[in-house]
Amino acid sequence: MIYFDNSATTAIYPEALRTYTDVSTKIMGNPSSLHGLGTTATRLLEASRKQMAELLGIKPHELFFTSGGTESDNWILKGVAFEKRHFGNHIIVSSVEHPAVKNTAEWLATQGFDVDYAPVDSRGFVRLDKLSALLREDTILVSVMAVNNEIGAIQPIREISELLADKATISFHVDAVQAVGKMPVEDFLTERVDFASFSAHKFHGPRGVGMAYIKSGKRLTPLLHGGGQENNLRSTTENLPAIASAAKALRLTLTDSEEKAQHVSRMKQILLDEISKYEKVTVFSGTGGFIPNILTFGIRGVRGEVVVHAFEEHDIYISTTSACSSKKNAAASTLTAMNVKGSLATSAVRISLDFKNSMAEIESFLTIFRQVYAQLEKVSSH
Amino acid sequence: MIYFDNSATTAIYPEALRTYTDVSTKIMGNPSSLHGLGTTATRLLEASRKQMAELLGIKPHELFFTSGGTESDNWILKGVAFEKRHFGNHIIVSSVEHPAVKNTAEWLATQGFDVDYAPVDSRGFVRLDKLSALLREDTILVSVMAVNNEIGAIQPIREISELLADKATISFHVDAVQAVGKMPVEDFLTERVDFASFSAHKFHGPRGVGMAYIKSGKRLTPLLHGGGQENNLRSTTENLPAIASAAKALRLTLTDSEEKAQHVSRMKQILLDEISKYEKVTVFSGTGGFIPNILTFGIRGVRGEVVVHAFEEHDIYISTTSACSSKKNAAASTLTAMNVKGSLATSAVRISLDFKNSMAEIESFLTIFRQVYAQLEKVSSH
Repeated sequence: MIYFDNSATTAIYPEALRTYTDVSTKIMGNPSSLHGLGTTATRLLEASRKQMAELLGIKPHELFFTSGGTESDNWILKGVAFEKRHFGNHIIVSSVEHPAVKNTAEWLATQGFDVDYAPVDSRGFVRLDKLSALLREDTILVSVMAVNNEIGAIQPIREISELLADKATISFHVDAVQAVGKMPVEDFLTERVDFASFSAHKFHGPRGVGMAYIKSGKRLTPLLHGGGQENNLRSTTENLPAIASAAKALRLTLTDSEEKAQHVSRMKQILLDEISKYEKVTVFSGTGGFIPNILTFGIRGVRGEVVVHAFEEHDIYISTTSACSSKKNAAASTLTAMNVKGSLATSAVRISLDFKNSMAEIESFLTIFRQVYAQLEKVSSH
Repeated sequence: MIYFDNSATTAIYPEALRTYTDVSTKIMGNPSSLHGLGTTATRLLEASRKQMAELLGIKPHELFFTSGGTESDNWILKGVAFEKRHFGNHIIVSSVEHPAVKNTAEWLATQGFDVDYAPVDSRGFVRLDKLSALLREDTILVSVMAVNNEIGAIQPIREISELLADKATISFHVDAVQAVGKMPVEDFLTERVDFASFSAHKFHGPRGVGMAYIKSGKRLTPLLHGGGQENNLRSTTENLPAIASAAKALRLTLTDSEEKAQHVSRMKQILLDEISKYEKVTVFSGTGGFIPNILTFGIRGVRGEVVVHAFEEHDIYISTTSACSSKKNAAASTLTAMNVKGSLATSAVRISLDFKNSMAEIESFLTIFRQVYAQLEKVSSH
């Protein structure tokens, strides 16, 4: 099997899974309990928080545990919107956000918030001039992802940070789900960023756990009210085995991350060089400004799902741009936002690499690619 | 170690933990993916849903997976409130609900909803006459827990079901977190119940996973917007290892549940008979109408946390009524709602048994109890 769908989900590190089972069997207390078992659980919880915060270059009390990237996104958008409603009701999100941000923004629009979508250029990058023009006196929140999940475009977080430098009343949220371990933390967690979202299963951690960065002093309404956990901001019994496991996974992910990124870049470069030679191939995510692990392309006239299934016949797993939209049989929303039209947009497929992938797999893939291309070229409608 | 804090959290079944690790290592696809790995994941997801639905006597499409009881409660209360806002804005919750319900209701009150609290009698049971008097034309939701987490009072869900029988516009939610495996499902999931909340770590499943029952045809606004999972009602990548593990735990929990309940009842009866003999002991949860696994009592004049720590010296773990409120050093809110005053309310401690506890542990506990009582009687303020 060749697994090239790592932006959908990654395999959990064996070491992280071991942490999960160790904590599950050995630490049974509820961190909220008054007795010693609770204290032991609390200590591990706070040690995990401290370790992850250090790895992300933030303070422990700025890191909150959630059930995943989607909850983090929902919490931050809704939490900031409800908290700051009296100061303004204008929200800007980019037009290429993950549905966890975009659909949340759409829901907020039904609740009386005024939502604008910052457009991207033809390559998928948020246009700073357009974003700047959308800013208003009553803007309370700007949300732009660090790395687009469908084509891997690295968004200009540093530039947006500068744009917002003198606009202290605007909260700035960055969905960093696809960025962790793929690019230096300081490139997406700038000093200006107030909120960020993370998901452990995207960096070889367990599913069902994510994090939210909430800059010291920034306020938001809880999404989960209840027993008062997470400093009264996110209630529910803490998922301690998964949290400790996620901490382990983050440490492993960020170990030698430069070497890993170089290895992934080399693999992507070879893929790019080779598949670009095929006449009917359109590449949507090249190298300049795109994350090294994502390569999105299309074979003109062939629908993405046909390509996915053709590779699956050879035990190779790629995807139609994003797991979350793949079953809906729709054009990738990022490509639509880029103004890519009709059959070209629906041709898109995504290869998402991981440092665990090997050059041998790249070679095998390219061999199979030649066969698949020849076979599909015949049925192509163009 | 004697662990009598099973209402805070239970130890995961070794079999359920094995399911977690098996699924984590063997099934790596994201259920949303189009390819075969995604299909395999989807099959297991739906098999887990089907199994749990059967065990709960509901239909698979009525069962939704969440991150726990708190999320289920928040989702249902907020989801129904936002969905039905145009039909009315009156909500009733009992005065002894878990903070996940009560604090959510309080937040909804800040959002323009009109919230009433149905009072309980001096023993902790919701008063039907008072609840009935609170019902209005614009009532959209009634939320009453199946079993109170602080004293184990079984609430009159059947009677409330009858009360609401001819009031189809009122949604009826039951927080069943403390009920699963402790009493017959049909006693808290009546035909009239529209919504219910569950948490896996209370029945020897993993943490970080819960369920919401949403009766066929009932609508509510999502709490987590995004990729459209769970029939577009609860987005986020499904926590498949934890879901499959929870399904296993539910099956094991409900196997021989009557025998387990009888064993637990016998243990509670012995505890009750013995500790009632001590002059300064007040029992808050007797046998008539209380769940067999919870026994809440107080030693007059001794604060609950002192009692908890005294037992901890002997490696016995009990709690101050509820994990979620124990660190706040406040009187149990259930006792306050029962109009139990001052030092009597702050004296309360909770023993929560599990079928895995043994008569030998009960005996040891009672031996230690005699010592602890003698020791604390001297420092008691009454």
